[in-house]
Amino acid sequence: MSRLKGNCVVAQSGGPTTVINASLCGVIQEAMRQDCIREIYAGYNGILGVLNEQLLDIGGQDRQTIAGLKVCPAAAAGSCRHKLSKDPKSGEYERILEIFRAHDVRYFFYCGGNDSMDTADKVSKLANQTGYELIVMGVPKTIDNDLAYTDHCPGYGSVAKYLATMVMESGRDTEALYTHDTCTIMEAMGRNAGWIAGSTGMAARELDDAPHLIYFPEAPVTRDKIVDDVRRVHARLGRVFIVVCEGVKDDKGNYLAEAGGDFGQDSFGHKQLGGAAEALRGIVEKDCRIKARTNKPGTLQRNGAHFASLTDVEEAYMCGAKAVQMAAEGTSGYMITLVRDPESKTYGCTTGLAKLSDVANGEKKVPREWINKDGNHITDEFRKYAMPLMKGEAPITIGDDGLPVYVRLEKRIVAQKCAKWTGPGKM
Amino acid sequence: MSRLKGNCVVAQSGGPTTVINASLCGVIQEAMRQDCIREIYAGYNGILGVLNEQLLDIGGQDRQTIAGLKVCPAAAAGSCRHKLSKDPKSGEYERILEIFRAHDVRYFFYCGGNDSMDTADKVSKLANQTGYELIVMGVPKTIDNDLAYTDHCPGYGSVAKYLATMVMESGRDTEALYTHDTCTIMEAMGRNAGWIAGSTGMAARELDDAPHLIYFPEAPVTRDKIVDDVRRVHARLGRVFIVVCEGVKDDKGNYLAEAGGDFGQDSFGHKQLGGAAEALRGIVEKDCRIKARTNKPGTLQRNGAHFASLTDVEEAYMCGAKAVQMAAEGTSGYMITLVRDPESKTYGCTTGLAKLSDVANGEKKVPREWINKDGNHITDEFRKYAMPLMKGEAPITIGDDGLPVYVRLEKRIVAQKCAKWTGPGKM
Repeated sequence: MSRLKGNCVVAQSGGPTTVINASLCGVIQEAMRQDCIREIYAGYNGILGVLNEQLLDIGGQDRQTIAGLKVCPAAAAGSCRHKLSKDPKSGEYERILEIFRAHDVRYFFYCGGNDSMDTADKVSKLANQTGYELIVMGVPKTIDNDLAYTDHCPGYGSVAKYLATMVMESGRDTEALYTHDTCTIMEAMGRNAGWIAGSTGMAARELDDAPHLIYFPEAPVTRDKIVDDVRRVHARLGRVFIVVCEGVKDDKGNYLAEAGGDFGQDSFGHKQLGGAAEALRGIVEKDCRIKARTNKPGTLQRNGAHFASLTDVEEAYMCGAKAVQMAAEGTSGYMITLVRDPESKTYGCTTGLAKLSDVANGEKKVPREWINKDGNHITDEFRKYAMPLMKGEAPITIGDDGLPVYVRLEKRIVAQKCAKWTGPGKM
Repeated sequence: MSRLKGNCVVAQSGGPTTVINASLCGVIQEAMRQDCIREIYAGYNGILGVLNEQLLDIGGQDRQTIAGLKVCPAAAAGSCRHKLSKDPKSGEYERILEIFRAHDVRYFFYCGGNDSMDTADKVSKLANQTGYELIVMGVPKTIDNDLAYTDHCPGYGSVAKYLATMVMESGRDTEALYTHDTCTIMEAMGRNAGWIAGSTGMAARELDDAPHLIYFPEAPVTRDKIVDDVRRVHARLGRVFIVVCEGVKDDKGNYLAEAGGDFGQDSFGHKQLGGAAEALRGIVEKDCRIKARTNKPGTLQRNGAHFASLTDVEEAYMCGAKAVQMAAEGTSGYMITLVRDPESKTYGCTTGLAKLSDVANGEKKVPREWINKDGNHITDEFRKYAMPLMKGEAPITIGDDGLPVYVRLEKRIVAQKCAKWTGPGKM
């Protein structure tokens, strides 16, 4: 057991997932069980809440509310896309430690993707250098499923289940109405990796089922190839259902579509994508002379708590709880990973550890051999990988109005002790 | 009881709904119980299947498949948007009667919106004029909820339930990530009526819940008004969630957005809409200087069988079954309507009848007084109307892969007896 006693901060970062609140629930409920952890705080809007000393008092929340976080969309403590400076001497990391010192925070749990693991790593290292005893643990989260060192990421199983269901259902629509709406194009999230787009391939239980074509960032396309693909499917079936990953590029490395306007880049320096489906529609209508329509579920896909994967929810919870257990045992500087049992015939999954610095610098794309030779659908290897992650339906509560009931944390901000923050990310 | 004995044809028309197959199931299962009906056929791809003598043999289908139609997205027998000529002498109506004569069809059940009721009416009248004994009954269907003479339309309760859930869930995403994605704009279907857009207002159980703004075709907007609305909500909450109906117009009657390209109109002569959310995003980003993103669920919203309203499913089934019962009693030339019990405190609904010709020429919009004075949200009257329609969750089967299992009709086409069709709608 860790000799270190003190308070803890948990924070959520980046795009929400269907199950990031399950991880939050796991962290909180396990932290309540650990004697070494006294008060539990959450960064309100992720790391911005730490910088601005906006810490939510979790201990004072209703226990039913905490339990309800297990199946609740988005990020209940708030999230952000604030990217801390690459420079460890920017002042931001010192500010985080200043807040932690002021509130006797000795445990920091950061739930996010590789940018967040980088942040956690830098905070951990600065604490070491300055002799402030702090245990830092990462909790994996991303619908993109692109973190290295983990078999898969919490959040992925649910987006896969929901988006594949969407494709199955709207694929039936195209099948019914192909004499009018001959082609449907659905846009999946995924900046650099096609894990989400690929998961919709699960909807095609049989050859002619939607989706007929899936385009991946890992398999660049040309306009000619798209036109050939669409014509071939159309000639065979009289209809075409396409899933396109927002991050699809051509063979010269240009994105199929980039959003125009004044907000073309986010604060991480990533290009803001979103127009891949509309761009593809233009190609299909102009070059193939086939009427096409687009479905762009956007943020719906990462928040479908009404049809979340139970496997995903339970693993997300496990990652949160395990991070606290390991921290209480004195482990620091690691992210919890998910480890698939390689022996068992039935799916089994335990946890492991990966260094924060390793995760920060890694990225896992879809192996090219899990995409078919034509570069437009998944192989059985992909199916075997994704299928168990999508299993089970997380139970939800439905209100008298026929709609889901999701909990909300009370905005109880812990009394502030430091000067107002005036640096980057000032709120 | 009707003395008339013979075969029946059922056909599905227009955009699918989550529950049009429940109506199909109701027609088929009730037709199997009626002695006056011998064989049951379905027009494959709606009225196109009749014109082209592509009739699906329903009697030969597996009974479990028929039962499974009750919760199954899209139109299992196929649908179409083929608009029959306004001119009763076009040859199309004669062709329909030719097919009906050849196959001894004495009962015709047409499941669709007001265009379909117009078709059914013209077929009915021509049969009368030519002395061919034929019973014609309409079964209401449209997510748009815009049919006159019926309290509501099968299909509406499910799209309302699902889309409101989508707004609730992605509204939480905006709430969590408002420091980055400050405004989310979701596009709802609805060419002329804002019933669907309005239903998302149900997601706002409390004042600050999404959606904060809803725009209706029934309440024209100006660019200035939108900008004022968005600024006011943003100043209060720091975030804005907007639902915009695809058919929203400005005060001069111009659509907020019309799809460009070569396919700007469908064969009904309707303008093909779809860009309202993107148009609105442009306004919000340019005039309000707020980053916005769009969700366009498109055909997803009308096919969410995994979260269908049980009330809607049961009423859709009831409409189909009742149409057959009335037909068997000799009633012809009517559409089944849904009649809400005006007395009871709890929701109750029975069926009634409306003349096909009346329904064909009617259209029901959202009463202006069910939209708030500002023209940007719903009133309690709207809530009271919509809430009971969204209640209950229709049970579905989930496969070993974690995805829904939906039935499919076998494509068993009845032996053809007539010359090939060469007129409009030739397949």
